[in-house]
Amino acid sequence: MKKRLVALVLVVVLVVIPSVVFGADENVESAINTIWVLVAAFLVFFMQAGFAMVEAGFTRAKNASNIIMKNMMDVAIGSLVYFAIGFGIMFGADKFGLFGTTGFFGTGLSAEFLGLSIPLEAFLIFQTVFAATAATIVSGAMAERTKFSSYIIYSFVISIVIYPVVGHWIWGGGWLSNLGMVDFAGSTVVHSVGGWAALVGAAILGPRIGKFTKAGKPNAIPGHNITMGALGVFILWFGWFGFNPGSTVSGMDSSIGFIAVTTNLAAAAGGVITMFVTWIKYGKPDVSMTLNGVLAGLVAITAGCASVSLGGAIAIGAIAGVVVVYGVELLEKVLKVDDPVGAVAVHGFCGAIGTILVGLFATEGGLLYGGGFELLGIQSLGVISVAAWTLGTSFLLFKAIKKFNGLRVEEHHEVAGLDIGEHGSVAYGDFQLKSLDTGK
Amino acid sequence: MKKRLVALVLVVVLVVIPSVVFGADENVESAINTIWVLVAAFLVFFMQAGFAMVEAGFTRAKNASNIIMKNMMDVAIGSLVYFAIGFGIMFGADKFGLFGTTGFFGTGLSAEFLGLSIPLEAFLIFQTVFAATAATIVSGAMAERTKFSSYIIYSFVISIVIYPVVGHWIWGGGWLSNLGMVDFAGSTVVHSVGGWAALVGAAILGPRIGKFTKAGKPNAIPGHNITMGALGVFILWFGWFGFNPGSTVSGMDSSIGFIAVTTNLAAAAGGVITMFVTWIKYGKPDVSMTLNGVLAGLVAITAGCASVSLGGAIAIGAIAGVVVVYGVELLEKVLKVDDPVGAVAVHGFCGAIGTILVGLFATEGGLLYGGGFELLGIQSLGVISVAAWTLGTSFLLFKAIKKFNGLRVEEHHEVAGLDIGEHGSVAYGDFQLKSLDTGK
Amino acid sequence: MKKRLVALVLVVVLVVIPSVVFGADENVESAINTIWVLVAAFLVFFMQAGFAMVEAGFTRAKNASNIIMKNMMDVAIGSLVYFAIGFGIMFGADKFGLFGTTGFFGTGLSAEFLGLSIPLEAFLIFQTVFAATAATIVSGAMAERTKFSSYIIYSFVISIVIYPVVGHWIWGGGWLSNLGMVDFAGSTVVHSVGGWAALVGAAILGPRIGKFTKAGKPNAIPGHNITMGALGVFILWFGWFGFNPGSTVSGMDSSIGFIAVTTNLAAAAGGVITMFVTWIKYGKPDVSMTLNGVLAGLVAITAGCASVSLGGAIAIGAIAGVVVVYGVELLEKVLKVDDPVGAVAVHGFCGAIGTILVGLFATEGGLLYGGGFELLGIQSLGVISVAAWTLGTSFLLFKAIKKFNGLRVEEHHEVAGLDIGEHGSVAYGDFQLKSLDTGK
Repeated sequence: MKKRLVALVLVVVLVVIPSVVFGADENVESAINTIWVLVAAFLVFFMQAGFAMVEAGFTRAKNASNIIMKNMMDVAIGSLVYFAIGFGIMFGADKFGLFGTTGFFGTGLSAEFLGLSIPLEAFLIFQTVFAATAATIVSGAMAERTKFSSYIIYSFVISIVIYPVVGHWIWGGGWLSNLGMVDFAGSTVVHSVGGWAALVGAAILGPRIGKFTKAGKPNAIPGHNITMGALGVFILWFGWFGFNPGSTVSGMDSSIGFIAVTTNLAAAAGGVITMFVTWIKYGKPDVSMTLNGVLAGLVAITAGCASVSLGGAIAIGAIAGVVVVYGVELLEKVLKVDDPVGAVAVHGFCGAIGTILVGLFATEGGLLYGGGFELLGIQSLGVISVAAWTLGTSFLLFKAIKKFNGLRVEEHHEVAGLDIGEHGSVAYGDFQLKSLDTGK
Repeated sequence: MKKRLVALVLVVVLVVIPSVVFGADENVESAINTIWVLVAAFLVFFMQAGFAMVEAGFTRAKNASNIIMKNMMDVAIGSLVYFAIGFGIMFGADKFGLFGTTGFFGTGLSAEFLGLSIPLEAFLIFQTVFAATAATIVSGAMAERTKFSSYIIYSFVISIVIYPVVGHWIWGGGWLSNLGMVDFAGSTVVHSVGGWAALVGAAILGPRIGKFTKAGKPNAIPGHNITMGALGVFILWFGWFGFNPGSTVSGMDSSIGFIAVTTNLAAAAGGVITMFVTWIKYGKPDVSMTLNGVLAGLVAITAGCASVSLGGAIAIGAIAGVVVVYGVELLEKVLKVDDPVGAVAVHGFCGAIGTILVGLFATEGGLLYGGGFELLGIQSLGVISVAAWTLGTSFLLFKAIKKFNGLRVEEHHEVAGLDIGEHGSVAYGDFQLKSLDTGK
Repeated sequence: MKKRLVALVLVVVLVVIPSVVFGADENVESAINTIWVLVAAFLVFFMQAGFAMVEAGFTRAKNASNIIMKNMMDVAIGSLVYFAIGFGIMFGADKFGLFGTTGFFGTGLSAEFLGLSIPLEAFLIFQTVFAATAATIVSGAMAERTKFSSYIIYSFVISIVIYPVVGHWIWGGGWLSNLGMVDFAGSTVVHSVGGWAALVGAAILGPRIGKFTKAGKPNAIPGHNITMGALGVFILWFGWFGFNPGSTVSGMDSSIGFIAVTTNLAAAAGGVITMFVTWIKYGKPDVSMTLNGVLAGLVAITAGCASVSLGGAIAIGAIAGVVVVYGVELLEKVLKVDDPVGAVAVHGFCGAIGTILVGLFATEGGLLYGGGFELLGIQSLGVISVAAWTLGTSFLLFKAIKKFNGLRVEEHHEVAGLDIGEHGSVAYGDFQLKSLDTGK
C-alpha cells in the first residue's frame, strides 16, 4: 500500500503539479507579453497623429486638410493592404532569403511557426502600425504639391511590397537577419525605407513653386502652426516608447526599462545638440530644426536601443542632432531637393547613420568595444542594400505614377492650395489667412 | 515514522504547495487583469480629448470655448454623478431585469458580487469613462446654439439615469443580457444611446441660424479647424483600442489581440469606403466625411469586435462607411435636423447597424454562418428597445428643460458666438476672424 | 530504497518545485511591475505635451514658439541632467538625511540597494519624467518675457539640485520621509517645488508690459488658443493616471484602481466647483479658470491619493477648486505678481494645501478620522520646509541669473514677441494676427 502511496505522490509531484504550475505560468507569461505588445502597438499607432501634426504644422495652412487626409489614408489603406498581402511577404515562409510566401489575408501563419509567445493577431497589429509608419514618412517630403490619387497609389505600393520586402530581409528571417544585422526597432527597416522613398519622390516631383529662386537659392517657406508641429513631436516621442521598448515583443524581457532610457536619452541629446548647433550657426536657437533634432535622435537610436550603453545612446543622439542640420542643408543647397518637413534628413540620413553607429557602439561586437569591423561591415552592407532596393523600386514606382496618372497637381491648384483643389474645402474657414492667392 | 513522513509529504504536496501556488497565481492574474483594465480605462478617458477636438474643430471658432467647456464638464459631472448614482443603477442588485438598486456612492457592491477578477474600483473607473462617453456624444449634435446651463442639466440626467438603465439591461444582468444580446463594448449601450439622445436634442433645439435656406435647402457650415478635428479622430481611434479590447475586462483573455485587429480593420475599411463614396458622389474625396467614416467603422465594430471574423470586421466597417454618408444626407435633407458634427449618423445609425450586423456576421450564431435568425432577432429587439427608451426619455428631458430653463441661447448670442454670450471670453483672441458678426 | 525515494520526493517537494515556482513568480511579478511603471512613465512623459499646450494656449500667439521650445528643452535638458546628477542626489546613499551621494551618471546604484522589484532603469525613467515635470511648471509663470538663455540655466539648476534635494527628503530616505510625511505622488515634491520656484521667478522678473495699469489694476491678457489649452488639460488629466497610480511603483499593488478613482474624482470635483465659483463670482462660468480648476484638483489629490477615502478625494478636489480661484486673485490683486497661466496658484498653493489636507483626510492618522494632530503637523512641517528651501534657493538662482546673464528680454522684443526676438521665426506664419506691434 505504501508503494502505491509513494507512487501516487510521485505522480502528483512530478506530473500533475508541474503541469498545472507551468501551464498557468505559460498563460500568465503569454498574457504579460500580449499586454505589453498591444500597449506598444497602440502607442505606435498614436504616432500617426504625431506625423499628421508635424507634417501639417510645418507646412502651409492652405494644404492642411490634404495632409491630414493623406495621413489618415496611410493608416487606413496601410492596415488593409498589410493585412492582406504585406504581412505575408514580411513574415511568411521564406523564399531565397528575399521574401515570404505565406500568410496572406490572415491565413496560413501561426504563432507557433513564428515562434511567438503571443497570439498571432497581437503580433499582426504590432506589425501593422509599423508598416503604416514607413508609408507616412513619405507624405511629409512630398507635401503641398502631390496629386491625392497618386498619393493613394504609392502609399498602397509601399505598404504592399517595398516595405515588407525589407522587413523580411531584416526581421522576417531573410538574408540580412541571417548575416546578423542589428536593427532592433527599425532605423533601417522603417525609417530609412520611408526616408529613401521620400527622397526619390521629392526629387522626381520637383520643388514647390517659389521654393528656389531663379539662381537656385532656397527660400524658407515657414510652417503655419509650429505649436501643432511641436505637439506632433511630443506625440512621436511618446509613441516611440512603444516603438523601441515594444520591439522586444515581450513584457517578460527585463531590458524594456533599459530601452526606454536609451530611447529617451538619445532624443534628449538630439534636441539639445541641434539647438546649440543652430544657435551657433544661425545666431539664434531654431525652433523647427530643434524639433527635428529630437526626432533625429529618436530615429538614430532605434536600431541600437537594446545594444548600446546609456552613454552610447547619448552619443548616437548627439551625432544625429548634428547630422540632421547638415543633412537638411545638403538636400536644399546641394541637391536642390525640396523636402518641406525635413523627412529625408530625419528618417533617411539619421536612420542610416544610426544603424551604422551600432557597429561602433554596440557593447557586444561594436568597434569601440573591441568587436572589430565585422558588425560595422554588416550594418553598412544592410544600410546600403536597403537604400539600393528602396531607391530603385521607388524610382520605378514614382516614374510609373508620373507617366500614367501624373504625380503633381496643376499649378493653379498648388497656388490656391490642395485643400480646395483636391478636396473642395479649407481647413480654417473662420480665420483670415495671409495672401493665399500668391502661393504663399 | 515513515507513515508520518509520507503523511507530511502528502499534506505539503496536496495542500500547502497548491495553496501557495494558486494563491500567488490568483494575485498575479488579478494584477494582470487590473493593469489591462486600467490602461484601457485611461485610453477611453483620453477619448474625451478626441471628442472635444472633433466637436470644436468641426464647428465655428466663435463657439470653440463653449464646446470644450461642455466636454470638460461631461467628464467632470459625469464622473461624480455616475459614482454617486449611475453605477448602482447599472450594476447594482437587479430589480425586474430593468435597473440596479444597490451600489450608490461607492458602497454596497463588491468585486465578488459582480464576479470580477479585479478590484471594484478598477471596474468603477472603467465604467465611469464609458458613461462619460455616452453623454459627450450629445454635445456635438447640439453644438453652437444650446444654453450652457441646459447642457449641464441634460448631461447630468443622461449620466445618472438614461445611460445606466440601458447599461443594466445589456451589461448589468438585465433582460436583454438574459436574452443573449451581444453588444461587446457598446455600439448600442454607449454609442446609440448618445446618438438617439443627440437626435432628439438637435430636433427639439432646431437648426442653427443660417443652416437652412427659406426653401429648406441645407447650407454647409464648415468647421473652423479641420486639422484639430483630424487630431480628434486619431485620438478617438487610439482610445478605441482601450474601448474594445479593454471590454474583455481581463488581460488574461487571449482574444485581446484579435479584438484590436478587428477594431483596426473596421476603422480602416470605414475610412476607405467613405472616401471612395464621397469621391464618386461629390467628385472629390471629402475630408470631414472621411474622418467621420473612420469613426463610423469604429462605432459599428464595437458590438461585434469579439464575435466576428477579420473579414467580417472589414465588411461591417465598410457598410458603416456607406451608412454614414447617406445617414448624414437623410438627417439634413429629409429630416431637416441640424447636427453640426454628424454625431447622430456616426453614433446613432452606425451604432444600431453595427449591433444588428452581429446577427449576420457572428461566427457563432450569425445568419451568414448558419446560425439562423435567432441572434439577429435578439440584436434587433435590443436596438429597437434601446432606441425607444432613449428617444422617449430624452424627449421628456429636453421638453422639460425647454419649458423650465430654456434650451437655446438668445439669437444675438448665437450670432456673436456662445463663447462671448455664455462665457464672456473668446477662444482665439489674437487671430483675425472672418465676419463674426454675420453669424458665420 | 524507499528511504531514498522518500528523501528524493522530499527534496523535490521542498526544494526543487518551490524554487522553480517562486523563481518563476518573481520574474512574473517583476515583469508586471516593470510594465506598470513603464506605462505610467510614458503617460507622465506625455504630460509634457499637456504643459506645452496649456502654457502656449493660455498665452499670446507671438510667444508660442518660444514656449514650446522651452517645454521641449525642459524634457531634453532635464533628462540628461537628471540622469547625470539629479538621480544620485535624490536616491543615492543618504548623507545627513539631506541628499544622496552616489548614483551619478547611471553608476553606483542598484535595484537591490533601492529595494526595487523592477530593474533600475525602469525606475530611472519613471523618476526622470517626474523631474522634468517640476522644471516645466516654472516656465508657465515666467512666460512671454524671459530670456531663452536664462530659461536654459534655471531649468538646468532646478533639475540638477533644487528638485532632487526635496525629492531626497521625502522619497529618497531623507529626514521628512523618516518623520513619516505622506506625499504619495508629489503634491509637494513635484508641484509645490515647481510652484514656489515659479512664484520667485515671476516676482523677480516683474509683470509683462501692459499687465498692470499705472494704478496697479491688473488687465486680463487672454490666451491665444483656448481649445489648445483645453487639449493640454485633457492630456494632463490623462497623464495623471500615470502620475498617481503609477507611484505605487508596483502593478501587483491592488490599490492602483482605487488611486485612479480618487484621482479622477478630485479632478472632477475641482473642475465643477471652480466652474460654479466663477459662475457666482463673475456671472458666467469662466472657461480658463475652470480648466485650471481641474488641474487644481489633480495637484491637490496627488499627495493623498492612496490615503484618503473616495469622499475625501472629492472634498480635497473641491477645496482646491476654491483655492485656485482666490489664489489667482491673491497673486494678481494683492501680490501684484504676473503669472500668465496660473501656475503658482495651481501647483504651488494647491500642492501645499493638498499635502496639508492629508493630515485631515487620511483614513489612517488623519485628524478627521481620529488620528490626532501628529500627521497634520508633519505634513505642515514638510510643506513649510520645502517652501523655505525652494523659495530660498530659487531666489538666489534667479538673482544670480539676473545679475550675470539678465533674466528678461529687451522691451522691443517683448512687444514684438519672443518668437521673433529669441528665435527669428513665428508660430503662425499664414494667419492674420491682431496688432502684434502694440504688445497685445
